Amino acid sequence: MSNKPNAIYIMGGGGTQVISASGYGAVQKAFASYRDKIGTFYIAVGGMRGALNEDWCDMFAWALEEGEEKAESRLNRIKWYSAPVFGTSRHKPDSKDSERLLELLKAHNVKYVFLNGGNDTMEKAMILQEFSERKGFPLTVVGVPKTVDNDLLVTHRCPGYASFAKQVAMNTMSVQADLDSFALPEGAVKDSPIKEGAVAQVLVLMGRDEGWGAAAAVAAKIDESYGPHVILTKEGGFNPDKFIKKCQEAYDKYGRLLVVAAEGAHDGESYIGNYLQVASKELNLEFQLHQDAHKNTSVTDSRLGLFLKLLIESKLNIPTHYKGLKVREEGPGYINRSHIEVVSAVDIQDAINVGSKAVELAIGEGKGKVMPILTDKIGEVSYTELCNVADTVKGSRGMTRSLSSLSIDGKSIISEDGMMIDKDLFMQYIGPFMDLNGPNRIELFREEGMKYPLERINFPLIERKLPAYVK
Amino acid sequence: MSNKPNAIYIMGGGGTQVISASGYGAVQKAFASYRDKIGTFYIAVGGMRGALNEDWCDMFAWALEEGEEKAESRLNRIKWYSAPVFGTSRHKPDSKDSERLLELLKAHNVKYVFLNGGNDTMEKAMILQEFSERKGFPLTVVGVPKTVDNDLLVTHRCPGYASFAKQVAMNTMSVQADLDSFALPEGAVKDSPIKEGAVAQVLVLMGRDEGWGAAAAVAAKIDESYGPHVILTKEGGFNPDKFIKKCQEAYDKYGRLLVVAAEGAHDGESYIGNYLQVASKELNLEFQLHQDAHKNTSVTDSRLGLFLKLLIESKLNIPTHYKGLKVREEGPGYINRSHIEVVSAVDIQDAINVGSKAVELAIGEGKGKVMPILTDKIGEVSYTELCNVADTVKGSRGMTRSLSSLSIDGKSIISEDGMMIDKDLFMQYIGPFMDLNGPNRIELFREEGMKYPLERINFPLIERKLPAYVK
Repeated sequence: MSNKPNAIYIMGGGGTQVISASGYGAVQKAFASYRDKIGTFYIAVGGMRGALNEDWCDMFAWALEEGEEKAESRLNRIKWYSAPVFGTSRHKPDSKDSERLLELLKAHNVKYVFLNGGNDTMEKAMILQEFSERKGFPLTVVGVPKTVDNDLLVTHRCPGYASFAKQVAMNTMSVQADLDSFALPEGAVKDSPIKEGAVAQVLVLMGRDEGWGAAAAVAAKIDESYGPHVILTKEGGFNPDKFIKKCQEAYDKYGRLLVVAAEGAHDGESYIGNYLQVASKELNLEFQLHQDAHKNTSVTDSRLGLFLKLLIESKLNIPTHYKGLKVREEGPGYINRSHIEVVSAVDIQDAINVGSKAVELAIGEGKGKVMPILTDKIGEVSYTELCNVADTVKGSRGMTRSLSSLSIDGKSIISEDGMMIDKDLFMQYIGPFMDLNGPNRIELFREEGMKYPLERINFPLIERKLPAYVK
Repeated sequence: MSNKPNAIYIMGGGGTQVISASGYGAVQKAFASYRDKIGTFYIAVGGMRGALNEDWCDMFAWALEEGEEKAESRLNRIKWYSAPVFGTSRHKPDSKDSERLLELLKAHNVKYVFLNGGNDTMEKAMILQEFSERKGFPLTVVGVPKTVDNDLLVTHRCPGYASFAKQVAMNTMSVQADLDSFALPEGAVKDSPIKEGAVAQVLVLMGRDEGWGAAAAVAAKIDESYGPHVILTKEGGFNPDKFIKKCQEAYDKYGRLLVVAAEGAHDGESYIGNYLQVASKELNLEFQLHQDAHKNTSVTDSRLGLFLKLLIESKLNIPTHYKGLKVREEGPGYINRSHIEVVSAVDIQDAINVGSKAVELAIGEGKGKVMPILTDKIGEVSYTELCNVADTVKGSRGMTRSLSSLSIDGKSIISEDGMMIDKDLFMQYIGPFMDLNGPNRIELFREEGMKYPLERINFPLIERKLPAYVK
């Protein structure tokens, strides 16, 4: 066994289309540039839970399994996963857990810790670094940013968001084209005896605490006649009457209605999804206000879309040349954040760059308590102090980056009525990084001999050094 | 004005990712090969409704708007739309409508009629041809097949289905990868004090009368541990207890659960979506059993997914090393059938081929009452009598092609318990046409200088010859 210090990489929270590219960036950088400085580079298999259970894999050994000459191409496999290839966890370590983790890190002589995640994870990173200093086994902890939600402060954009935004834009264009095909075309006869059902569409997108995901739908809006005609976010607020009025205006003017809502769409007191009670009489199941297993009222389900559908169908006045209104409703949530095909190649490179930079900062330059950040220039990575991005008060969401915080040239991106996004400003901000007309995954695959479906990689676990965790 | 007979092309029903390619195939073929035989090639703008209102466009004139040398590239724009570029309609013509249509066709000297749609449309095509013969203005009517549902008889596969299946497969792989990242990895510690919420996923897919869409999810199933672990179709039947038993087995064995359901999932008496009542107390709206504007109980909404989510969360026993169960639920419906990016290039060519063949049959060979069909060889198109595909009894669904009708080597594709699809048999049937590792739209675009977002084409309407339709 070498006496060189070791490193560990831990993923946390929900996936993004490019989170595995960050994992790749970190491991590849360590393997290619720092084998003289570190003994091995561990990953926690299964995120923080795996880290605490000592479910670790030795990535140098894994890379070298078929020899040095095949190592780079083995590592390259990691890059392509559309979800956390090392596994992830939502577990929030308490002080007992921090002690356990420190024991494990000591036992394995791990000095460099990379925590890959969002705001919560950045907070954990800072706490762990301070804790290790107090305990006399000082660590070099670096945060690696990821989130589809784009709700990290300081960084220009968060790896994962641009791909999510691209997928949202494409989905919106898709339902729009379908919706358009049922609308009355320009110059068509309206007052004929041929009456059809009018069609409108509700699209619900991920984003509980902010509306970045829903905002991206605006990329599909070619002019005022194109949807989305309404975009609901948590930031924008919600009022049923004002909402219906805006829907009515769009339908009257364009004969089309496409509503996009963030799952966190909110009236100031409650998530709008909570407006809907659901129950099953047949099976005698009552779910007056559905709570998930964590006793949180779940908004990541279809209640919001279904409620908006029912509301619009009940309240919208449809011109007499229609025989009624059908509102279609759908909400691709987990598909959007992990789509294996639709991805931004710029975002993949962003993700690789932050992973790689994290390792450079920690191992190359000995910098801890930092997080690499993306600047507004393609390919450029800088870094910031972790305290600039982490919530300092546990549980506080005060540091979450809200959509309403984005203003360009002094103008807010959210319309005055709170129910629309300014397309020009939005595209100015994220357009080049979404890379809407760039390659998607299968094109990138082809260059490297990969193909669908991708099998999961079962990373072999190391022999454990400590007794099982007992709390 | 020429004395040569004219033609008209009418789209009907819901879109597919490649329906516009069929429209392109037909117009391009007519333009390139038959300008000596036909005066002009009309399209009905807005499907059957547009046809009856005389909302027509002269496609030769449209193609030639910028001169002969630019005509082919103008026509080429049509090919790329992911939804019905000419507009569509669900209107079912009655006998009064048939008379009106015949008057219009006479007034414009239209002898060739192309109806692009599914079973219903093929029935209409047959009725129109017979009606015109009785009225002494015999038409040459050809059906052009389209449907994402694959529920047309006789043809090996229906244009639109392979792309839909590809999109379903990719979505399933996407949620699977995300789900996998939360599952306990191989060899990981189970009985630790670190307890997390278990995660399962429900994915609902289009297909009210059959399960072809949901079946395609099986393409994501690499081995038994991979989802889908349960596939519910209308054909398979549903029983809550047997369903939960199957879910339980998967979770116990693999620590994963991915359920895919066709929107038409059925217990033999009722759609499963009908198990769920929804209501909004806040806004005093009651929707005990939601009916859409057509007084059909709508299943194309999120009730099915939400019901399955609640059922699984209520009934599944989760091992004690989890702290609870969160079932995620989503259902991308209209996005799947019109996805602008994910498409099968083989399917696009299939669609072009049937459009082109339809024109060849009618104008080139003078054959009516037929429909081009795809054989099991890539690129090969044959044709069949319309009566082989159309329902002869109005309203009957007897001729709908059910998933249970597909057997390969004498084996049914549906498992004995009705809740799974045989992957090998299924891929043997559709795999080569899905073209999972082939290019998607942006790659194909690039070759032709197209890009996102695509603007709708506003086809200029001809001067009307008849008075407005009064019924």
